[in-house]
Amino acid sequence: MRKKIGIMVILLACMGVSLFAQESLESLGFSLNVVWLFIGAILVFIMQAGFALVETGLTRAKNATNITMKNVMDFCFGAIVYWAVGWGFMWGEDALGGLIGTKQFFFSEMLLNEANADIYKNWFFQVVFAATAATIVSGAMAERTQFKSYLIYTCFISAFIYPISGHWVWGGGWLGNLGFHDFAGSTVVHSVGGWAAFMGAIVLGPRLGKYIKGTDGKVTVKAIPGHNIPYAALGVLLLFFGWFGFNGASTGFATIGDGSVWSGLAIARVCVTTTLAAAAGAVAALIFSWIWFKKPDASMTLNGLLAGLVGITAPCAVVSPGASIVIGLLAGVLVVLSVEFIDKVLKVDDPVGAVSVHCVCGIFGTIAVGIWGQGEVSGLLHGGGFTQLGIQLLGIISVGAWAALTSLVLFLIIKAITGLRVSPKEELVGLDLSEHKAEAYAGFQIFSNM
Amino acid sequence: MRKKIGIMVILLACMGVSLFAQESLESLGFSLNVVWLFIGAILVFIMQAGFALVETGLTRAKNATNITMKNVMDFCFGAIVYWAVGWGFMWGEDALGGLIGTKQFFFSEMLLNEANADIYKNWFFQVVFAATAATIVSGAMAERTQFKSYLIYTCFISAFIYPISGHWVWGGGWLGNLGFHDFAGSTVVHSVGGWAAFMGAIVLGPRLGKYIKGTDGKVTVKAIPGHNIPYAALGVLLLFFGWFGFNGASTGFATIGDGSVWSGLAIARVCVTTTLAAAAGAVAALIFSWIWFKKPDASMTLNGLLAGLVGITAPCAVVSPGASIVIGLLAGVLVVLSVEFIDKVLKVDDPVGAVSVHCVCGIFGTIAVGIWGQGEVSGLLHGGGFTQLGIQLLGIISVGAWAALTSLVLFLIIKAITGLRVSPKEELVGLDLSEHKAEAYAGFQIFSNM
Amino acid sequence: MRKKIGIMVILLACMGVSLFAQESLESLGFSLNVVWLFIGAILVFIMQAGFALVETGLTRAKNATNITMKNVMDFCFGAIVYWAVGWGFMWGEDALGGLIGTKQFFFSEMLLNEANADIYKNWFFQVVFAATAATIVSGAMAERTQFKSYLIYTCFISAFIYPISGHWVWGGGWLGNLGFHDFAGSTVVHSVGGWAAFMGAIVLGPRLGKYIKGTDGKVTVKAIPGHNIPYAALGVLLLFFGWFGFNGASTGFATIGDGSVWSGLAIARVCVTTTLAAAAGAVAALIFSWIWFKKPDASMTLNGLLAGLVGITAPCAVVSPGASIVIGLLAGVLVVLSVEFIDKVLKVDDPVGAVSVHCVCGIFGTIAVGIWGQGEVSGLLHGGGFTQLGIQLLGIISVGAWAALTSLVLFLIIKAITGLRVSPKEELVGLDLSEHKAEAYAGFQIFSNM
Repeated sequence: MRKKIGIMVILLACMGVSLFAQESLESLGFSLNVVWLFIGAILVFIMQAGFALVETGLTRAKNATNITMKNVMDFCFGAIVYWAVGWGFMWGEDALGGLIGTKQFFFSEMLLNEANADIYKNWFFQVVFAATAATIVSGAMAERTQFKSYLIYTCFISAFIYPISGHWVWGGGWLGNLGFHDFAGSTVVHSVGGWAAFMGAIVLGPRLGKYIKGTDGKVTVKAIPGHNIPYAALGVLLLFFGWFGFNGASTGFATIGDGSVWSGLAIARVCVTTTLAAAAGAVAALIFSWIWFKKPDASMTLNGLLAGLVGITAPCAVVSPGASIVIGLLAGVLVVLSVEFIDKVLKVDDPVGAVSVHCVCGIFGTIAVGIWGQGEVSGLLHGGGFTQLGIQLLGIISVGAWAALTSLVLFLIIKAITGLRVSPKEELVGLDLSEHKAEAYAGFQIFSNM
Repeated sequence: MRKKIGIMVILLACMGVSLFAQESLESLGFSLNVVWLFIGAILVFIMQAGFALVETGLTRAKNATNITMKNVMDFCFGAIVYWAVGWGFMWGEDALGGLIGTKQFFFSEMLLNEANADIYKNWFFQVVFAATAATIVSGAMAERTQFKSYLIYTCFISAFIYPISGHWVWGGGWLGNLGFHDFAGSTVVHSVGGWAAFMGAIVLGPRLGKYIKGTDGKVTVKAIPGHNIPYAALGVLLLFFGWFGFNGASTGFATIGDGSVWSGLAIARVCVTTTLAAAAGAVAALIFSWIWFKKPDASMTLNGLLAGLVGITAPCAVVSPGASIVIGLLAGVLVVLSVEFIDKVLKVDDPVGAVSVHCVCGIFGTIAVGIWGQGEVSGLLHGGGFTQLGIQLLGIISVGAWAALTSLVLFLIIKAITGLRVSPKEELVGLDLSEHKAEAYAGFQIFSNM
Repeated sequence: MRKKIGIMVILLACMGVSLFAQESLESLGFSLNVVWLFIGAILVFIMQAGFALVETGLTRAKNATNITMKNVMDFCFGAIVYWAVGWGFMWGEDALGGLIGTKQFFFSEMLLNEANADIYKNWFFQVVFAATAATIVSGAMAERTQFKSYLIYTCFISAFIYPISGHWVWGGGWLGNLGFHDFAGSTVVHSVGGWAAFMGAIVLGPRLGKYIKGTDGKVTVKAIPGHNIPYAALGVLLLFFGWFGFNGASTGFATIGDGSVWSGLAIARVCVTTTLAAAAGAVAALIFSWIWFKKPDASMTLNGLLAGLVGITAPCAVVSPGASIVIGLLAGVLVVLSVEFIDKVLKVDDPVGAVSVHCVCGIFGTIAVGIWGQGEVSGLLHGGGFTQLGIQLLGIISVGAWAALTSLVLFLIIKAITGLRVSPKEELVGLDLSEHKAEAYAGFQIFSNM
């Protein structure tokens, strides 16, 4: 009897140690996941600086304060409205059969306890994505939009437009349930921002002096060069840097606690495909622009790099390294064609090429899942037939229609009520002096305002 | 008997595996904590670049080399003296009843073995905080301070002033033992730097041409605009980026190894409150300056964002997301009022608003703990009465008195011995040419030096 | 009997929990290591931005687009060729007795499964190192190299030159097997890039107007100042920031899963020695240039900081904090002497001092292992006699000979076939207009092109 008791005591002690180890293993896994999402979030956050630099560099000096302020403030307003209502619409309990989230507004049901640890962890990662969608728009609307009107717009996209289509795909909504695959947001983030940018640029009209009608009725398209290419290049490198978090941390977890190395492997593979697609995008745009325009064009090449990144954002976790290079190369060519088409044929004035990079390549990247996807999803080239491709197209169209229509209506309402565009005189003087009453580069000689 | 031995063998093997798992769990937790503090440290490190850009952008082109060099070199000198003596004063064994640390100078008692792993880990995280306190000062003293004198000052603050009051709060000293709560350093880092900045600006006097006395005896306050707003905006975004490490990693641990999710939760919550307070600070300063000055002022708004960050630094771990927005909004208004008051009423010339951002909002953030604190500390609005608030005020006053008095004496001694300020001629020419014999922007046209 | 079965069941359950815990512990360790290498890789990646800014800032405005484009594109081309062949040469199965790797070209043997998790993880960390070696060269060859020729060169160094000597040291080759110690790449990365930079600068010849022969036959050496010191300073801070990943994550692991704290300790110590050496390098170069040139020279000081970093890269894991300061101080003095010697005596035109920083200090850092090394390696001052020092010298000479000879031949072939240098007219106009048909700073007044 005593023997038995002795053995039982040892057994229980032994199990106790095991269970304690297990429990700590879970808390350690949770901590590692917090650290991982933290890394992802700060990397996506610094993309705000990347966007600010790209947009500042590719526009004129007289609007430099204005464009940087728009990039800073869309994050600030966006963060507050995304806390207030955006998060709830996107991630709150599903309603209306997959159409919208409906809980956790103002974190209203959150207590400061452990039960809500996941919400805190995830909100920080999600808010920076919402800000990315919003800030894409400032580039396409640069150099002529009222500061006040831009701020109104940015509140709506972060509170309402982005979260609702985001709910469809990632928040438990109908598209995600159908099997639509958008790993890190070619559609959810980039094409939503890109469509809004496109609508904004159309409603605004082109910058003064961009399209000049001659006496013969022919329209001359004038290139308006940016004022600081090193800013643009630094911005692109910061975006590339941040994109490793954007794509990499979209795994959501560094460990899923089942003893598999799935999460770690997924992170590592995503980094490889992201790197290769971005590199291939830049190489393709460089060579293509060199052949077409007889010069290795800097802004086209930089946009090619971004095109590769946007293109790989949806498929980064489900394609091979070789396929990622193909996707990058195609995106790099596509962005050059698109920039020329929108500028010369459609005559829509997008100063930084935001629509081509984020909308066009966002669509392309989402399609790429249905072509080169393997493993989790089966694309056309990997035995999946047209099934996945069809779902991808459905997602592209429905999210595109949602983003384009709501932002079009929004811009038209803002235009009717407060006005969207500055006066011609203010535009000529520059938005820095007319809106903010201060130059960006006090003491420096700036040439004629063109 | 053999049965019994057999069972015992299995039991021991089983316990062995358990204990081994437990041991590895501890080493894994240690590694995760090293990685976490590493992330925090590099993020705080890059704030040096943020400060450099903000201060360069908000001052004149003729002093741009000088101000960037000051920001680079205060880190370099600071790192060496913080290794030599600063760390020992702050974190060495307590002496004199909580007043000062007294061991580990020059890492003298450190061997290159595992026993000192924690010291290596923590020093890297602490040295970047010391550098932050030091570098705050360069902005307030910009455009007129001798390079040599600045370097002397920076050695003293990193070796002596910052570590000693730091010991009081974080290093096992009397204020921490009283229950003073300053999670990431509104008082320990920001107000110490802010007080030194204030004393420095007073001892130096204003820049030439800043306050012009008319023939009628009335003083006209002249605004001296900065030469590169995109630098300032990029700097603020880098500071925001780095602040996630500043506040987030001030948890000290990603896991505390007790099977709880406390650390992970704390990190996640700190990120939420930090984001919201910063955003609210920028929004408040933007709207307040827009109403007051009839323009959405760029530098005020950027300072508002920093004000929100400084304000949430002390309370970030003990307030709700809603309270963090209130704290940010108040800090954003406060910084605008303070900048105007110091400039127009006190007539102290602080070119970048460093005193208002770091000292004034650092004090406010420390008070905020005593008002909105909950959980660990109970503020006025959460049933704690005035107890915590009183302790917070005691800390503000004693650390403030220490930092202000020692830095005042230091600046006066430097002034007496080597001189603190450049000559009027050197100031007019600019510190780049007069001190470093080189322009910051060779080949660019720069307007009159004002 | 039932008792026995009961006990066995409990025992097995107990072991099951233990083994499960152990298995998850391993996967958790793998995930932490993925996260750690991810952090390292992105930090080294952002060094591309650091190099771009340093090189842009220290050269003239008329070549700013060109130099940034070179820095962006060497990464992009480099990533693709390093995937195609570079990785295989460096890390593929060893052949020819330690001379070259021969497998895994185009990731050809990689399936998208867990077995290759390590390859994905490591490739991302390695590709950024390859890019660093490549991008060092652009600075020394700045302001006069054809864009096309630079791109050809960069493919060869990333595909062939860097990977093969890298294989010798890190990839299982003969130097590593001999005991050559280069923790993070003073020789493998920096001196390889530095030697290529030196050969490139020699083959190219100096910039027009750099060395002017008077009528008396005496040669006047003209200083050609850079156009943006804040860019250079920001670039150095970004490099410093990235170097924590460069050195820190060269541990390869955050945990090695044996229950020891070795990895965590190594990371923490590397951060301490890296910080102190960089700081000491800047301080030494500042003071030395102040005494010698009677001014605290900005670009010398910034190069001193980088010199400290390059110098500590090889020995960072095997020297004490005190020794790291000595190494930094010596590197800071050495870089000033070397810059003057190469410019004034050798009359080789290296616009940014890349050869002095990366080649000279890379050699010095590798020697430092043999002098101050302790623990793993025993240097001269720690009882090891001349053994380690001899091995270090052998590595320096053989890798140096390899890098210098292959890059010399490569540059001579490129020069013979496509030409290496732009025409004098293109050089005078600037590479931005002549190569890329666009100014970097449209709308800004730039002085005569000197």
